[in-house]
Amino acid sequence: MDKIPVAILGATGTVGQRFIQLLDDHPSFEVTALVASDASGGKPYGAACRWRVSSDMPAWARDMVVQPCEPKLDGRLAFSALPAAVAEEVELEFAAAGWIVSSNASAHRMDPDVPLLVPEVNPEHLDLIPIQRRRRGFGRGCIVTNPNCSTIGLVLPLKAIQDAFGLRRVLVTSLQAVSGAGYPGVASLDILDNVVPHIGGEEEKVETEPLKILGRIANETVQPHPARISAHCNRVPALDGHLLCVSVELERQATGEQLAKVLAEFRGAPQQLGLPSAPPAPILVRDEPDRPQTRFDRDAGRGMACVVGRIRPCPILNWKFVSLTHNTIRGAAGAAILNAELLLAKHLL
Amino acid sequence: MDKIPVAILGATGTVGQRFIQLLDDHPSFEVTALVASDASGGKPYGAACRWRVSSDMPAWARDMVVQPCEPKLDGRLAFSALPAAVAEEVELEFAAAGWIVSSNASAHRMDPDVPLLVPEVNPEHLDLIPIQRRRRGFGRGCIVTNPNCSTIGLVLPLKAIQDAFGLRRVLVTSLQAVSGAGYPGVASLDILDNVVPHIGGEEEKVETEPLKILGRIANETVQPHPARISAHCNRVPALDGHLLCVSVELERQATGEQLAKVLAEFRGAPQQLGLPSAPPAPILVRDEPDRPQTRFDRDAGRGMACVVGRIRPCPILNWKFVSLTHNTIRGAAGAAILNAELLLAKHLL
Amino acid sequence: MDKIPVAILGATGTVGQRFIQLLDDHPSFEVTALVASDASGGKPYGAACRWRVSSDMPAWARDMVVQPCEPKLDGRLAFSALPAAVAEEVELEFAAAGWIVSSNASAHRMDPDVPLLVPEVNPEHLDLIPIQRRRRGFGRGCIVTNPNCSTIGLVLPLKAIQDAFGLRRVLVTSLQAVSGAGYPGVASLDILDNVVPHIGGEEEKVETEPLKILGRIANETVQPHPARISAHCNRVPALDGHLLCVSVELERQATGEQLAKVLAEFRGAPQQLGLPSAPPAPILVRDEPDRPQTRFDRDAGRGMACVVGRIRPCPILNWKFVSLTHNTIRGAAGAAILNAELLLAKHLL
Amino acid sequence: MDKIPVAILGATGTVGQRFIQLLDDHPSFEVTALVASDASGGKPYGAACRWRVSSDMPAWARDMVVQPCEPKLDGRLAFSALPAAVAEEVELEFAAAGWIVSSNASAHRMDPDVPLLVPEVNPEHLDLIPIQRRRRGFGRGCIVTNPNCSTIGLVLPLKAIQDAFGLRRVLVTSLQAVSGAGYPGVASLDILDNVVPHIGGEEEKVETEPLKILGRIANETVQPHPARISAHCNRVPALDGHLLCVSVELERQATGEQLAKVLAEFRGAPQQLGLPSAPPAPILVRDEPDRPQTRFDRDAGRGMACVVGRIRPCPILNWKFVSLTHNTIRGAAGAAILNAELLLAKHLL
Repeated sequence: MDKIPVAILGATGTVGQRFIQLLDDHPSFEVTALVASDASGGKPYGAACRWRVSSDMPAWARDMVVQPCEPKLDGRLAFSALPAAVAEEVELEFAAAGWIVSSNASAHRMDPDVPLLVPEVNPEHLDLIPIQRRRRGFGRGCIVTNPNCSTIGLVLPLKAIQDAFGLRRVLVTSLQAVSGAGYPGVASLDILDNVVPHIGGEEEKVETEPLKILGRIANETVQPHPARISAHCNRVPALDGHLLCVSVELERQATGEQLAKVLAEFRGAPQQLGLPSAPPAPILVRDEPDRPQTRFDRDAGRGMACVVGRIRPCPILNWKFVSLTHNTIRGAAGAAILNAELLLAKHLL
Repeated sequence: MDKIPVAILGATGTVGQRFIQLLDDHPSFEVTALVASDASGGKPYGAACRWRVSSDMPAWARDMVVQPCEPKLDGRLAFSALPAAVAEEVELEFAAAGWIVSSNASAHRMDPDVPLLVPEVNPEHLDLIPIQRRRRGFGRGCIVTNPNCSTIGLVLPLKAIQDAFGLRRVLVTSLQAVSGAGYPGVASLDILDNVVPHIGGEEEKVETEPLKILGRIANETVQPHPARISAHCNRVPALDGHLLCVSVELERQATGEQLAKVLAEFRGAPQQLGLPSAPPAPILVRDEPDRPQTRFDRDAGRGMACVVGRIRPCPILNWKFVSLTHNTIRGAAGAAILNAELLLAKHLL
Repeated sequence: MDKIPVAILGATGTVGQRFIQLLDDHPSFEVTALVASDASGGKPYGAACRWRVSSDMPAWARDMVVQPCEPKLDGRLAFSALPAAVAEEVELEFAAAGWIVSSNASAHRMDPDVPLLVPEVNPEHLDLIPIQRRRRGFGRGCIVTNPNCSTIGLVLPLKAIQDAFGLRRVLVTSLQAVSGAGYPGVASLDILDNVVPHIGGEEEKVETEPLKILGRIANETVQPHPARISAHCNRVPALDGHLLCVSVELERQATGEQLAKVLAEFRGAPQQLGLPSAPPAPILVRDEPDRPQTRFDRDAGRGMACVVGRIRPCPILNWKFVSLTHNTIRGAAGAAILNAELLLAKHLL
Repeated sequence: MDKIPVAILGATGTVGQRFIQLLDDHPSFEVTALVASDASGGKPYGAACRWRVSSDMPAWARDMVVQPCEPKLDGRLAFSALPAAVAEEVELEFAAAGWIVSSNASAHRMDPDVPLLVPEVNPEHLDLIPIQRRRRGFGRGCIVTNPNCSTIGLVLPLKAIQDAFGLRRVLVTSLQAVSGAGYPGVASLDILDNVVPHIGGEEEKVETEPLKILGRIANETVQPHPARISAHCNRVPALDGHLLCVSVELERQATGEQLAKVLAEFRGAPQQLGLPSAPPAPILVRDEPDRPQTRFDRDAGRGMACVVGRIRPCPILNWKFVSLTHNTIRGAAGAAILNAELLLAKHLL
């Protein structure tokens, strides 16, 4: 079977690098174009990019010439790791030119006709694609987005909880790694021996994105889930991995054992369809008193699993737990790849 | 005026070192005995102690011979930085022998007749001292305690809020520095590039100590404040400074401006009495979007002030804010010294 | 073919954990006994060990019962990750009982009849084994050691240089990661935002071990190489990977290109014999101005390669370069495994 | 006595901030102008600057309006923290306009008629000033420079050694903190859990600047000292403080005790003249086996002292030792201030 040719938009940044690493030897996709801003255009990728991922740059990427950001490229599927301000226009142009854009950028996540997709949570939101195409005159192109790197570690457990017990209120505090800010991103003088209790725009995303993802489609748009979320977001001196301290209020009573069971047994479309990037279980539940930990658990399920632990009663809401996800894999590039794998399995690609 | 001779119990640990640093040139207290476990006994302090505080060890401490932990020492006031398990018995022995014990240990904090004292918050809890003496037959000795290093950054703003608007529910997530675990404490292999979402016994302390501190004395004991607190406690790779993300529910409505004003204008007994270690204002309110930060704000008020920022509405409870306190100064040694200064000002020493 | 049953002595420490990780699915060796100090004896390994390696503990190890350190165990090959003080006696007992002991401990490294073995450098030192057996009455047992975790990144390039150009003098400064000190090892209060310019006994090892390894056997012992080495050893806040800044004086002139070529083309017995843990090339030469770097290069060759870069003239000696090696893989457990693989290939096991 | 009005050029960067911090309450100098690039011009300093120094920004600086970089300003003394490329021209313009420029920039350090000044080492190099003025037609203006932040911790002990025993060869490896790269400077993704063995241009500076500083004036220029220096420079994850591992070869034999004594008793013009920023002793010698350490010793002498330890024989050259200096105080702003204090004491200001 021929692999689908794919372009990576914003290929030189930290998320672009993760796309290249994760698409190395992918069974369905083959990278045929690396796209970046004008400054990098025309250079070999190996020279244009300051590689900040631990494993080596794949040999095929090193010599590929970086191309400017234009939809005239050959290909069908584009992964977007563009900055939000650039993504706004460029992703529309690519979709209008017939590309399937699987985007990690925030620009179109909250557009009413754009799926904010987590394959285990809301695969039915793919029904927005024909609506999007019709409204925007996109032909065979479209935009599909994945959530913010902090949202993902919240919405996976919330979905399992919502289905089993109903969900009312959520209070979450994040401890986020520096790679979430891209490169050069967070200055070492700002974060060594420090905590920064503010990440621009992050709390708003964490408070709204999960409600769209958990919402239902009605009248050609998504009706957000009626739960309420409050977020505190912090930057900490870790390289990869966003850790969340979560308190939840449920509709219906649950025991700690029931909660752990529901989380551990949660499965979704990627597991049922056997998508190549799907972890065997989207949520791993650990029962040690001090897990998950950022460094030791971020690579669970090759960075695609969410690790939950410390399930215990909350004196204010009902239950407390800790959730950890790899922010540049499951929280960014891996999420967009899993979305594209779902599109392929659903014959939408 | 002669200075009061004081002993430091547990003088070689990280909190013991802070006592020595903070009591260097103190106007009322003079260190006359350094006490530590048997292993250190008989050695000069400079040899017995691995000094981990940034400024140099005071010259007077270097040659002082470390003594075993026995109440036969000369002196009147003992600062205790003992481990809880040791403090349990030793502090009782010292109090029975007539010492005023100002303790940072957790052993007796929740005893019904022992003040868990924050001079700005509950100076009236000193009324427990005659009760304690009578019940325990202590004569002129007694035990006074200061709260856990995470409690302090919570209870100072909660007191200001309680007085102005009433307090119902509090959800707090801590990001705590490694010095809170003492020395050697947290292994570097456990915390570099990592977050540990668990600190043994810490959440229980943060959920109960503030309610005793905010409580009222009735029937010879403290009736805890009826608010409810839920805590998530985390260890992060910072050296000093505990940062708290706090959400509060009030009895009565307040605007953000009112809240900021009440916090910034909060004053207590140490300010009114001009105690030597008292910061000019116990709470500093900052209005930058990204302050307080651990490294940049922990030394505010020479480590004795609590810095609050990011006051904003909480979609779940009423208001959110961030609070930062130096954990080994205001959260430990500085707190015990301020307590002793209050005792002195109140002629209880 | 049946796998050789092996015991890991000191299985619960950081190096012991690396042995377990690296022996998972090994083609020739199968772990049949995990041995540790009395405190861990009788517990399942999963309970006895605080696993500090990033990948998950292999399932087979989790339930294996930790055994006390006695040579009555079944097996033929023992990997020793014991502390030096314990290794001194225990390794002799195991060898006397017929075990082949492949040791990472320093206790017997400098014994005149014990090979200090680096398979790419001095495979002929295996000729010490019959001498050792005869002298000590070991029967079929023996002790083989691998060098200190800092020595290895020095001796691999020195061997290539010695063979091509002769070697006179070496000045080396190390920047060593915290995992080299074991667990709990370096306290976070000692190393966050700090450099410690001292590691007990390390400089002596780095100044003497390479000379034994590069030496020749004569009169039943090793005549050390006549070069002179001076070492400065430092601990830095990195998790894994020892970086060395090296200046060398050669016997015969060389250009930088010649030096780079000799290092890059260096091969030894493991490559010729195709040993399972051998990296394709023992030394990787990089020509970027800022490589190798600790985090980005420590995993080269699955942690078994030495990465060299920044080859440039030295105004004092002849050439300067930087060398990096993974200290708990090539510098410890991986080294001992490669040694055992060489013994097996040479029919000495 | 009236204070001398001073301008700070490049006032918003990390070194500019140190100037402001160190000139707060200075007995002889008063900051009257804060100068920065066009982007900051016209804003109050508190808004133009991202303050990255631990203590609070002085109140007087907060509201001072940042001015563009033109010599029409009122004043007599300018401290330059400009980037080298900008400093090249601007410092000449200021000197031509009659300013005494005390510069931390590298642009003019190696100019034959510009003093590269360390007051304890080469105060006689001030004799270059009349030569500089005459050649360049500067009138009463001139440029005086201080060395690179790594040079200073080397040249102070080298001067003491040179005077007592003569100096032949020096091999130095630096472990440098991130603040040396300015702000934003080193990205956290580049340095957390890492060492970077390269700092652009640094080795060249460390190998040449000390020889000019130790040189003698002859024929209206500086004849560099004939010793040879070789440097390896590394960036490590520490905030402030450059640690140097040094090996030296002497002209005449010395014992370790003699070396320690010569270093500890070294004094220079700042100590003799009692300059306000001078440390009591320029070099502090410590005899613990593991000192100096970056975090614990960088603030010695309020950041103006060099701390030396681990004096021991070197098997290659004669002696080895470790030296530590605060890179943004003694290695930058503090150095330029001490230079200006010397000029004032010598009636050159």
